[in-house]
Amino acid sequence: MDEFSLIGRYFAGLCEADDSIALGIGDDCAQLRVPPGQDLVVSIDTLVEGTHFLPGSDPGRLASRLLGAAVSDLAAMGAEPAWFTLALTLPEADEGWVAGFASQLGRSARDFGIRLVGGDTTRGPLTLTVQVHGWVPAGRGLHRRGAAAGDLVCVTGTLGDSRGGLECQLHPEKGVDAALMERFFAPQPRLDCGRRIAPYASACIDISDGLLADLGHVLEASGVGARIERRQLPLSPALLAFCGEQQARDWALCGGEDFELCFTVPAAHWPKLQQALAGCGVPVTRIGEILPADAGLQLLDAGAPCALPGTGYNHFVSAGGGADKE
Amino acid sequence: MDEFSLIGRYFAGLCEADDSIALGIGDDCAQLRVPPGQDLVVSIDTLVEGTHFLPGSDPGRLASRLLGAAVSDLAAMGAEPAWFTLALTLPEADEGWVAGFASQLGRSARDFGIRLVGGDTTRGPLTLTVQVHGWVPAGRGLHRRGAAAGDLVCVTGTLGDSRGGLECQLHPEKGVDAALMERFFAPQPRLDCGRRIAPYASACIDISDGLLADLGHVLEASGVGARIERRQLPLSPALLAFCGEQQARDWALCGGEDFELCFTVPAAHWPKLQQALAGCGVPVTRIGEILPADAGLQLLDAGAPCALPGTGYNHFVSAGGGADKE
Repeated sequence: MDEFSLIGRYFAGLCEADDSIALGIGDDCAQLRVPPGQDLVVSIDTLVEGTHFLPGSDPGRLASRLLGAAVSDLAAMGAEPAWFTLALTLPEADEGWVAGFASQLGRSARDFGIRLVGGDTTRGPLTLTVQVHGWVPAGRGLHRRGAAAGDLVCVTGTLGDSRGGLECQLHPEKGVDAALMERFFAPQPRLDCGRRIAPYASACIDISDGLLADLGHVLEASGVGARIERRQLPLSPALLAFCGEQQARDWALCGGEDFELCFTVPAAHWPKLQQALAGCGVPVTRIGEILPADAGLQLLDAGAPCALPGTGYNHFVSAGGGADKE
Repeated sequence: MDEFSLIGRYFAGLCEADDSIALGIGDDCAQLRVPPGQDLVVSIDTLVEGTHFLPGSDPGRLASRLLGAAVSDLAAMGAEPAWFTLALTLPEADEGWVAGFASQLGRSARDFGIRLVGGDTTRGPLTLTVQVHGWVPAGRGLHRRGAAAGDLVCVTGTLGDSRGGLECQLHPEKGVDAALMERFFAPQPRLDCGRRIAPYASACIDISDGLLADLGHVLEASGVGARIERRQLPLSPALLAFCGEQQARDWALCGGEDFELCFTVPAAHWPKLQQALAGCGVPVTRIGEILPADAGLQLLDAGAPCALPGTGYNHFVSAGGGADKE
């Protein structure tokens, strides 16, 4: 057994028993049980050193970011998280690195209620891929398609914080805010919100590329337009203190990797949705409304039309690189 | 939309409709249906440039090798293939490369009866990860555990050919054999064999690290030993012509990536298993038998004990690198 096999075995300890796992780590495949009446939902995500994070990043922070971002796709479907697999490519079999990574991966997995069931450990440039699996009631699930003219556009939490956390790393001389850094490295997938809004929302997406870009995906999939009010974007006190209101609003529109949910809801469902969200602990803010397709995507500032800022979110470090989920 | 998003969209054309796919490429998750009474089986595999294949390798060959190797894990479980996801990290958005890769990926997917349902395309050093999904009757499925003393040890097809194909690339001056190269680049997962043997076999694994290493995994998982007869190893005429009998037998024992099945079967099931395999078109060879654990792994040569060759299979290019499936 070579050194990579030994490293691979490190993760076997993270595989906890569960009724849904007939066979976990250690065979050619994991064997798993989707409950009757549920559809399986799956999503795969990759982080690459130099593209999505700076060389030398702390392995624990990478683990929480990797899994948080991936599980966020389950939240956007209103899904119950179940299992994940990990494909880890490492330049060397560094047990210290793996220990830090696996330790935080285990903590994040427990926080999100998701279990490691398999993986592959290989040698090469640092690349981390995770596939997450969950389930939704058969034939249900929140999709990008489904928004209709007149629906309200809403977001969970606050926007732009992760972009602030990135700025703290790129320009530490301008100041470092721990809360913003935490938003960058430890995204909190809005699983509870997703499940609560699923019965009422008409469409949903998680904000990974930036609000305008991701709302654009909903508009395209649904064949509609939208109007967004810049003054209604939810901003955290930390971000406002860090960069001021104008910059914060731009980052809220275009900063990526907030991993909040952007969803649409028919106006008639709004009261029930608010009831459903009571006590969930995450604010939900109305930021605009869905329009017919020919309206396109319009941005208002205190009711007056204003220009859209550049919507292309380029991932960290390598401008023009980035990632796309097919 | 950046260039990588455009490349990502290239794969959307590979997503064919199917009753089991409620939602394919183009949302936060794919939404999928496991038939009632079936367990889901999943496996994730990575190929890295410079570790698993030479820089500059033909993209079509990489596609067939990537998917063939991954689907082989489904064959080893006796599973029905269903869906796969692809995480592709590319140094640049090279449409020509992607066209060649996607075209062969589509052909291989159709050959294996598996459908692309999602992916992630990122910028970075060339790394290819695929997760395959399939199903087996609930509570069934072929596992590594389950072999018992007295069981026969069998393999499908011929062994060592892929190692011969690797040699053709490393030392082309010694001669290049097209059939061996094909075994290296276009592994044929033994899906049909796996399903036919599943009701009778006691344990199974696919041969990715070499017969001795992979049989070792079965012995460890089952808590048994085994005796293998070197003269009974099935060898192809192409391999015998390429390197002679002694070398061929060593490569059959230790060469990796043949992606044949190694399985064990109670002697009482052997006649029924042979009937079940009739007409499958792939030879199955008895090469030894399972012993109690304290016997360890014994190698015979025409009935006489002989030393085990080094069993560590090091992947291509980077000695000591390689891959391990957890």
